[in-house]
Amino acid sequence: MARGRRPGDGNTREAIATSARRLFAELGYDRTTLRRIATDADVDVALLSHYYGSKVQLFAAVVDLPIDPATAIPRIIAGDPATAGTRLAAFALDLQTDDAKRHRVVSIVRAATAEPEATRIMRERLTSELLTPLATAIGSDRPAYRGSLLMSQIVGLTLARAIVQIEPLASTPPAQIVASIAPALQHYLTGPLPEDQPGTAATNT
Amino acid sequence: MARGRRPGDGNTREAIATSARRLFAELGYDRTTLRRIATDADVDVALLSHYYGSKVQLFAAVVDLPIDPATAIPRIIAGDPATAGTRLAAFALDLQTDDAKRHRVVSIVRAATAEPEATRIMRERLTSELLTPLATAIGSDRPAYRGSLLMSQIVGLTLARAIVQIEPLASTPPAQIVASIAPALQHYLTGPLPEDQPGTAATNT
Repeated sequence: MARGRRPGDGNTREAIATSARRLFAELGYDRTTLRRIATDADVDVALLSHYYGSKVQLFAAVVDLPIDPATAIPRIIAGDPATAGTRLAAFALDLQTDDAKRHRVVSIVRAATAEPEATRIMRERLTSELLTPLATAIGSDRPAYRGSLLMSQIVGLTLARAIVQIEPLASTPPAQIVASIAPALQHYLTGPLPEDQPGTAATNT
Repeated sequence: MARGRRPGDGNTREAIATSARRLFAELGYDRTTLRRIATDADVDVALLSHYYGSKVQLFAAVVDLPIDPATAIPRIIAGDPATAGTRLAAFALDLQTDDAKRHRVVSIVRAATAEPEATRIMRERLTSELLTPLATAIGSDRPAYRGSLLMSQIVGLTLARAIVQIEPLASTPPAQIVASIAPALQHYLTGPLPEDQPGTAATNT
């Protein structure tokens, strides 16, 4: 072990995980190297491989989405179904305003353009385990289609606000954004969706 | 010039641009190299630098958004303002269904997580030159805020459908998606938005 570097104690894994989450969020997947994470966490690079294996294995282990469907779904469907969009919007904004959660969410959205493991997390953890069951729990038709529409707006908001940092969206208070996007999320959750209309697709292809 | 490679004729620039757009779309910005573009376009790599300079200069030159606000805005605001969301949704889906347009749009969304030049294009070309003026032309209040909300949904849809390829969204006919997202875009374009409410932000931070 090099001098000044942390030994492989119980805190080392967490130090590596924290550094990895922050760097994946700030630099994106491709530009984050194991060596850079090791330097940031002040540990020997060999320890990273020892604890986590390859870069994609490290990514999958530390950058899971900070979402617990078992608590989130009951909280969002509690109360008037006509205001569930507001509660889902508040949940989505909370993922961006808490530093530790934002690092994970931004890491995944950034990596989704490069790394299949990140797209898997967006598909499974965000959509299949949270948003689609939410539409099912609220009693809506076509829950999987609604789940994928909801995912498009929630991920797009993360990209626009936390990555591209487009103004005035990036500096608007979360409560105001919640109120602004709630009607769109409500529409995707419970609003009328068009039936499949054979023949009409050709007008837009 | 190496044998079998195209000389620097008038078609070479276009061959380079076409290969670059496709590879930036398929591989993302970081994983697309000048050498790979040169091989794909069957030209000498020195020609790329000669014509376009650095990789970021090539990106900026060939991957601009296929959007002409001077024709798009009048077409979207023509007719009933209450259905402008449908016309904007059709415009957004058309960017994904035409191959040549999709390569450019996907290139930019993929690169937005890594390269400032791509975020500049999303900010200026998509939001400042198209979406915000659209909200202004339709007579809505706070057009810049509406422009950034519209951008979040349009970019999120591109990410979900063309990059993550989430199902059933990715295989749903464009006309059906247009009808599904139109009410959300209509809300961002002309719907009531909450006023800035001092004190309420704290509940979500």
